Amino acid sequence: MGFNDKIVDVNFESLLRIFTVPEAPDSTLGNIEQKLSQNLNEFLREHIVAEEKPLSEIEKDFSNAAIPESPTFVSEHTQHLLDTLVSHSVHTSAPSFIGHMTSALPYFLMPLSKIMIALNQNLVKIETSKAFTPLERQVLGMLHRLIYGQSETFYQQWMHSAEHSLGAFCSGGTIANITALWVARNNALKADGNFQGVEKEGLFNAMMHYGYQGMAILVSERGHYSLKKAADVLGIGRSNLVPVKTDENNRICPNALEDTIKQLKSKNIKPFAIIGVAGTTETGNIDPLDIIADIAQREGCHFHVDAAWGGATLMSNNYRSLLKGIERADSVTIDAHKQLYIPMGAGMVLFKDPTAMKAVEHHAEYILRKGSKDLGSHTLEGSRSGMAMLVYSSMHIISRPGYELLIDQSINKARYFADLIKRQADFELISEPELCLLTYRYVPEKTKQALKVATFEERQQLHQWLNELTQFVQKKQRENGLSFVSRTRLTPVQWNRMETNVFRVVLANPLTSHDILHSVIEEQRQIAQTSHLVLPKIESLTKAILQR
Amino acid sequence: MGFNDKIVDVNFESLLRIFTVPEAPDSTLGNIEQKLSQNLNEFLREHIVAEEKPLSEIEKDFSNAAIPESPTFVSEHTQHLLDTLVSHSVHTSAPSFIGHMTSALPYFLMPLSKIMIALNQNLVKIETSKAFTPLERQVLGMLHRLIYGQSETFYQQWMHSAEHSLGAFCSGGTIANITALWVARNNALKADGNFQGVEKEGLFNAMMHYGYQGMAILVSERGHYSLKKAADVLGIGRSNLVPVKTDENNRICPNALEDTIKQLKSKNIKPFAIIGVAGTTETGNIDPLDIIADIAQREGCHFHVDAAWGGATLMSNNYRSLLKGIERADSVTIDAHKQLYIPMGAGMVLFKDPTAMKAVEHHAEYILRKGSKDLGSHTLEGSRSGMAMLVYSSMHIISRPGYELLIDQSINKARYFADLIKRQADFELISEPELCLLTYRYVPEKTKQALKVATFEERQQLHQWLNELTQFVQKKQRENGLSFVSRTRLTPVQWNRMETNVFRVVLANPLTSHDILHSVIEEQRQIAQTSHLVLPKIESLTKAILQR
Repeated sequence: MGFNDKIVDVNFESLLRIFTVPEAPDSTLGNIEQKLSQNLNEFLREHIVAEEKPLSEIEKDFSNAAIPESPTFVSEHTQHLLDTLVSHSVHTSAPSFIGHMTSALPYFLMPLSKIMIALNQNLVKIETSKAFTPLERQVLGMLHRLIYGQSETFYQQWMHSAEHSLGAFCSGGTIANITALWVARNNALKADGNFQGVEKEGLFNAMMHYGYQGMAILVSERGHYSLKKAADVLGIGRSNLVPVKTDENNRICPNALEDTIKQLKSKNIKPFAIIGVAGTTETGNIDPLDIIADIAQREGCHFHVDAAWGGATLMSNNYRSLLKGIERADSVTIDAHKQLYIPMGAGMVLFKDPTAMKAVEHHAEYILRKGSKDLGSHTLEGSRSGMAMLVYSSMHIISRPGYELLIDQSINKARYFADLIKRQADFELISEPELCLLTYRYVPEKTKQALKVATFEERQQLHQWLNELTQFVQKKQRENGLSFVSRTRLTPVQWNRMETNVFRVVLANPLTSHDILHSVIEEQRQIAQTSHLVLPKIESLTKAILQR
Repeated sequence: MGFNDKIVDVNFESLLRIFTVPEAPDSTLGNIEQKLSQNLNEFLREHIVAEEKPLSEIEKDFSNAAIPESPTFVSEHTQHLLDTLVSHSVHTSAPSFIGHMTSALPYFLMPLSKIMIALNQNLVKIETSKAFTPLERQVLGMLHRLIYGQSETFYQQWMHSAEHSLGAFCSGGTIANITALWVARNNALKADGNFQGVEKEGLFNAMMHYGYQGMAILVSERGHYSLKKAADVLGIGRSNLVPVKTDENNRICPNALEDTIKQLKSKNIKPFAIIGVAGTTETGNIDPLDIIADIAQREGCHFHVDAAWGGATLMSNNYRSLLKGIERADSVTIDAHKQLYIPMGAGMVLFKDPTAMKAVEHHAEYILRKGSKDLGSHTLEGSRSGMAMLVYSSMHIISRPGYELLIDQSINKARYFADLIKRQADFELISEPELCLLTYRYVPEKTKQALKVATFEERQQLHQWLNELTQFVQKKQRENGLSFVSRTRLTPVQWNRMETNVFRVVLANPLTSHDILHSVIEEQRQIAQTSHLVLPKIESLTKAILQR
C-alpha cells in the first residue's frame, strides 16, 4: 500500500508508518511532494508581491488555540496550507520586492536543503553531527579568512582545534551581535585577583571590583536595533548603548566618537566596546572602520563590526576596499541569509583571536566535555541545525567570483536607480547608495521650488505633510501588491536633521530589472495623486509660497 | 535549455539563471533532486548509526579555508556532499540511535519543509511574512493552551493582539530559557521612582537602586547547562545560579530550596527566579512543580519551568498529570524539535501573562513600530524562519491523540527497558524512568556481590574502575556504529553520591523495537569483555574481596 497519508483511527501501527521512509518513489507522499513543488514554483514565478487580504481576515484562519483532536490527511492539509498560508505569504523573492533585505534564493538550494532537513543533525555536539561539525568549522574558517586573510598555517592550526574557535554560527545577526558583545563584556571584566570574573560573579560584583560606575557600548546613531537588545540582555542597559552623531552620509563622526569617550570616562563609565557599522540597515552606509580601529586600539576597547549586511561585499575585489579596516576588528557579524543568498537563519560572528571565545566557554557532563570538539561549548545557542551546509554549498557552486558579480550588479543597480530618481522632477534622493541601499521620497516639482524660498515654519509644515504623503504612498503600494518598498524615518543633514519619512530600497535581487525600477517610481507617482487628504494641502501651501 | 547546473565562466547571465525558477519539472535540477532524494532515503533506511571514520580523517575533507575561485557543477557538488558529508553524518533517526534527544522525524515533514525553504519568509515582521505571522501566533496559542488551558475568550482576546504576546518562537530551548529569565530579571528590577528600569539603566544601577548585593536564580543541581549560560549572559553570574540538592529521584528537595532562599536573603541576595525542571536532561525526572509554585508565590519569585524535553508529555491525557503545577508557572520552555518530532530549530517559551513580555519589548524606525503586530518586537532573535509552520502542520496531521500515543509508547518502552536491565545479572539500573529516559551501567555479576561486602576504600576503587569501563564501552559502541547510547556522570544517592559514569538512553524513536533494546545490552556486554585494561583489574579485586 505504500505510505498512508492519514493516521486513520490514530493507532500505533499507522503512527509507525509516518516515521518510516518509503521504499517506492511513487508513493502517495511522492505525489503530494510533486504537486507541492509545482505549486510553489508557480508561486515563486508570480510577479505579485502579496495578494491583498487584510491581516484581520487572514487571522481568522489562524484563530483556534485548540490542538486538533483528530488527524488530518497529509494531502488535505497540504491543500489547506496552499490556500491559507502560501497564497497569503509575502513573495520575498519577487523581483519587485525591493523593500527589505530578504531576497531571492538560488534555486539549487531547494533540493540541497533536503539534506539538512532529512539528516536533522544537531550541531551542538559531534555525537549528533559528526561530519557537519568540521564542515561548520570550515565555513567559519572561510569567512574568517575572507575578513582577516590570515595565513594558511593559521587556519591549519586553529580551524579544527578543540580548544579554540574562530567564531560561532548563529540563527541570525542579532545573536551574532549579542555573542560578540558578550565576549567583549566578559573580557573587559575578567578574573583579577580575588575577583573570579563577570561570567561567574555577575555584573554588580564586577563593577564593584573594577570601580566603574557603568559600562558603555558606542555605535553610530544608525546602529541596528539589535544592539539595544544586546545592551539590555547583557545587563549593560539600553541607555549605555551610546549613539554617536553621524555625518551627511550616515557615517559615524570620529570627533564625536572621541568626545563621547572622553565624557564617559570623566563620569567613570567604562567604554568597553566600539561598534563600526558596515552597511547601515536603513541606508547601507559604511563607517570609517580604519579610524574607529585606531580609536579602539588607543582606548583599549573591543572593536566590533556589524557587517550583517555589508560583510558579503568582501567577496568583490572591486568593492571590498569600502570595508577597509574591518581586518582590524576584534569581531565581525555577517548574515549569510542576507547578501550571501542563504535561506533564513544563517548568521555568523567571527573573532580575530582564536582564544577570544574562551571568555564564554562552558561545559556539561553529558556533552561539551573539556577537550571535545563539540561546537556547543562556544555558542550562545544550544541545539542548532546544519544550516552551515547551505553556506558551504553556495560557496562552492557560486564561488567567490560569482558572488563578486552579484555584489557588483547590486551596487551598480543602486547607482542606476539613484540617477533615475535624480532625473525625476518630482522625486528627491535622500541618501546616495554606497552599497545597494538608497532612500528617497516623492516631492511635487513645485513644492521642491517652494521649499527653497519657504520660511522656517512653512518648511516644517510642508515637511510634515510630505512625511504623511510618503507614509500613504508606501502603505498603498504595499497593499496594491505589485511591488514593495519599505519605509523608515531619517534625520538628513540636508533637511537640518528634521525627521523625514523616506522610501527605502534594497536592490539585492539579481532579477530586479531596470524596467521594474522605472515602474516602481511610476506607480508611486500615480499613488501620490490619489492622496486626497494630504496632497491638496501640500499643493495649496506650495502655491501660496510661490505666489508671494 | 532549462536550468544549467554550472555557472559557466561566471557571467551574469548564468548567475541570473540560478535565481530563476525552472518552468519544466524534468530539468537538470529536477534530476539532481530525484537522485538526492533516493540517496537520502537509502541513508535514512540504513540501520547503521555512523560509518566509522576518525574525526581527524573527516576533517581533512573540510580543511581548506579559501573560498573557491571557480564554480562547481551542482551535480558534482551534490555527489561531493553525498561522499564527504552525508556518508559521515550521524544517523540520528536510526532506531538504534537511542543516546540523545534527536530522534526520527515524521516523513511527511520532508515535502512540507519545502514550503518553509522556498517561501523564505522572515518572521521578524509582517512585511516579510504576512500569513506566517498569525500562524506563528496560533502555534504559540496552542502551546499556551496546552499548558495553561485558559478559556476560548482568553485566546480570542490575546492571541493576535498587537500589544501582547503569549510567548516567543526561538531557535531552541537555550534561547527560550534565556528569554524567560530576561523577562524575569527585567520585571524584578523594573522602573521605580527615578530609576528607569534595568533594561534602560543596566544591572549596576538597578542593584544600587533596589539595594541588593546580588541576584540569584535557583534550580535543582540537575538543571540544564543552558541556565548557566543564561546567568552569565544576563549579568547575573554563574555562581548566582544556585544549585539546589535533589532527592534519590533527581527531583529538587523543597526543604533545601527553602533553606537556600533563606540563606540568600540573609546575604541580601535577591532570589528573583526559581526554575522547575520538567524532564531533566540526564534522567528525565520532573520536579514537584506544585510545591515549587507555592514557594515561588510566597517569595514573590518568577516561576519558570524548563520543560524543553518533558513539555510534550502534556499531549498525553494519561501522563500529563506528571507535570501537575506547570499551569502555575509564569513561563515555560518547550522544544518542539524534541518530543514534538519537528526538525532542529524549534524552541518556544510561553508566558502565562500576556503582558509579561512588555519587559523586553523594543521598537525600530523601519519595522516593529508601536502598534504593529510584528513578532520581532518581543523576541530575543531578529530575523527568523517560518519553522512554526512545521509545528502547525504536525499538530494537524498527527493531532493530539496521535502525540498521546507517541508519548505513551516512549514511556512504556522505557519501563520495558528498565525491567530488562534489572533482569540482567550484570547490569545495574541507576535511574528509573519517569519519562522515556533512563540511565544504567555494566557491573560484572560477581562485582555486584563484592560491592556489598567491600570496604569503603575498595568500593571507591571499584567504582572508579567501573567508571572507566562505562566510558570504554560507550565509546567503543559509538565507534562500532551499530547503535548509540550516550554517557553522563551522576551522583546517585544509592552510591552515596559518588560520581558515577552511566549509559544514558532516550527512547523517543517510535521505531526502536524491543529487539533493538536487547541487542544494545548484548553488544555492551560483549564490548565490556574486550576491555583488557580495566576489566581484569575489576575482576581481580572482586575475587580478592569475595575470597576473604
